[in-house]
Amino acid sequence: VTGIQQVEDAARRLAGVSVRTPLLRCFELEQRVGGVVLLKPECLQRTGSFKIRGAYNLMSQLSKVQAKRGVVAWSSGNHAQGVAAAGRLLDIPTTIVMPEDAPKSKLANTQRLGGEVITYDRYTGDREAIARNIAAERGAEIVPSYDHEHIIAGQGTVGLEIAQQCQEAGLLADQVLICCGGGGLTAGSAVALTAKLPGVAIHTVEPDEFDDTARSLALGKRVCVVDSARTICDALMSPCPGEMTFEINRQLLSDGLSVSDEDVREAMRFAFKYLKLVVEPGGAVALAAMLTGKINGKGMTTVVVLSGGNVDSDSFAEIQRSGSG
Amino acid sequence: VTGIQQVEDAARRLAGVSVRTPLLRCFELEQRVGGVVLLKPECLQRTGSFKIRGAYNLMSQLSKVQAKRGVVAWSSGNHAQGVAAAGRLLDIPTTIVMPEDAPKSKLANTQRLGGEVITYDRYTGDREAIARNIAAERGAEIVPSYDHEHIIAGQGTVGLEIAQQCQEAGLLADQVLICCGGGGLTAGSAVALTAKLPGVAIHTVEPDEFDDTARSLALGKRVCVVDSARTICDALMSPCPGEMTFEINRQLLSDGLSVSDEDVREAMRFAFKYLKLVVEPGGAVALAAMLTGKINGKGMTTVVVLSGGNVDSDSFAEIQRSGSG
Repeated sequence: VTGIQQVEDAARRLAGVSVRTPLLRCFELEQRVGGVVLLKPECLQRTGSFKIRGAYNLMSQLSKVQAKRGVVAWSSGNHAQGVAAAGRLLDIPTTIVMPEDAPKSKLANTQRLGGEVITYDRYTGDREAIARNIAAERGAEIVPSYDHEHIIAGQGTVGLEIAQQCQEAGLLADQVLICCGGGGLTAGSAVALTAKLPGVAIHTVEPDEFDDTARSLALGKRVCVVDSARTICDALMSPCPGEMTFEINRQLLSDGLSVSDEDVREAMRFAFKYLKLVVEPGGAVALAAMLTGKINGKGMTTVVVLSGGNVDSDSFAEIQRSGSG
Repeated sequence: VTGIQQVEDAARRLAGVSVRTPLLRCFELEQRVGGVVLLKPECLQRTGSFKIRGAYNLMSQLSKVQAKRGVVAWSSGNHAQGVAAAGRLLDIPTTIVMPEDAPKSKLANTQRLGGEVITYDRYTGDREAIARNIAAERGAEIVPSYDHEHIIAGQGTVGLEIAQQCQEAGLLADQVLICCGGGGLTAGSAVALTAKLPGVAIHTVEPDEFDDTARSLALGKRVCVVDSARTICDALMSPCPGEMTFEINRQLLSDGLSVSDEDVREAMRFAFKYLKLVVEPGGAVALAAMLTGKINGKGMTTVVVLSGGNVDSDSFAEIQRSGSG
């Protein structure tokens, strides 16, 4: 199981590769919440989401032989860009299986970063089978999007930075809200946060219909969402918690929250208007939980992770427009 | 004339009031430029632009009697919000004369922050006369948007932070590009930068038709633009350099650059796509100069100020859309 030592090792590997994203204050948000709110905008990260942290941490540990054979991954788009960018930096060929309805910018950027993209139908195809076939044919390594100790350790550098930045600012964080798909960012960050900020409460935030981690935490065992589940948060559509990620999250987290797609749209409008940040739907769920009052921040110091900003300009404009009526 | 001591005093007054905005790296931009590029995103500042720095610095030095009588300012929208926000923090009544065609969000936010807004026609009205009449009637103080030593010192904290943040990052800045209207941000920042980073080159960037500072620098004396000048950069439509600001800029700057409205739109699209930042037209001119290659950054370390992000969602969407063809 991933420990703080592995997260700190990952931070050393990532020095000069990933961006140490800032911890931002927003007075408008603090006024609404009635407490201190710090934002960790991973939309400002290289490739527009936190995913390069885990991908690079894993891929930089491959042997020369493995690196030469390349890697294969499947992803809705953010892990794809992280893997492609890490591949370019490390000179490792990358192939990524992506849903054909992924945001255009995610498909285009993955290719621009040098990734070979293979598309499939999100609702009928089996991306894992496609990827495993390619990997077997080429002798390539699979780079999982969350359920791997090196991925968890890499994403955990988000939590490590939050702890360091809170200390630098002289602020004691009471709670941290983390956008949650398969649970890699949450698990790694929880490892770092509980090691560095003992007593901090960590909450996952998911889309209402993809609340598998929240329900799994409540039941104490992994459960999945129904096949018919839908959300605008294309980055958070993993139906079940990972085995490794859930084992960590089960031990370090108390509960999980969820928000509606309309809550997410409102959070994206807030981010445009008051934060001046471009946040994608999946990156806005934690902010949405704060704005809707699903979590109480009054008199407390809350850290809110904005996990990504990769959204097409058309979708972005439509979401902004939908709020003006 | 404003000196480094006044900028450092302003920084102390602003502690806990303004945001110490981060200095961000963007690998995509660095790849295009072929050098290190650091962005100072004042769009992430309280009120969405740097303007609260100068307004608060001046207004916090008013006497109790002056504070009670209130202040009057004129502004296209960013100084307006800075003055209104400072007024709310300091319990000073604020009245701001604004063009009726200012972005809706600038008008609305100024009122939301407690400012009394009086509108006028940008092309036919005399905002200065309107403001001076109100000030005379009420015995109120005028808060100029750039030509005042306290305003210059406050805006100079942007340059002071850049110098500190470059030192913290172990980077030596070769040049700094600053968005320029009346020249307050440039003058204050130039004072701080030349004091802290001797030898650094400082360039103003203006819209092509509002290149009064560039032409004034070239001529060695203040000249103004023609009445028919137009630009989408509503924040940078001051027709002449300020007296005090130009006196400083003349001594500390070599030359000024200018960019077209289309360059600005392209920079705003780049900021959305790769920086995940909402930048307003006037806040994007320095980035535009970098992207168009009007300034060479190859093998150098360049700091680019993004001075504001207050743009209506409709205009923003239209600018994003105009680039997709």
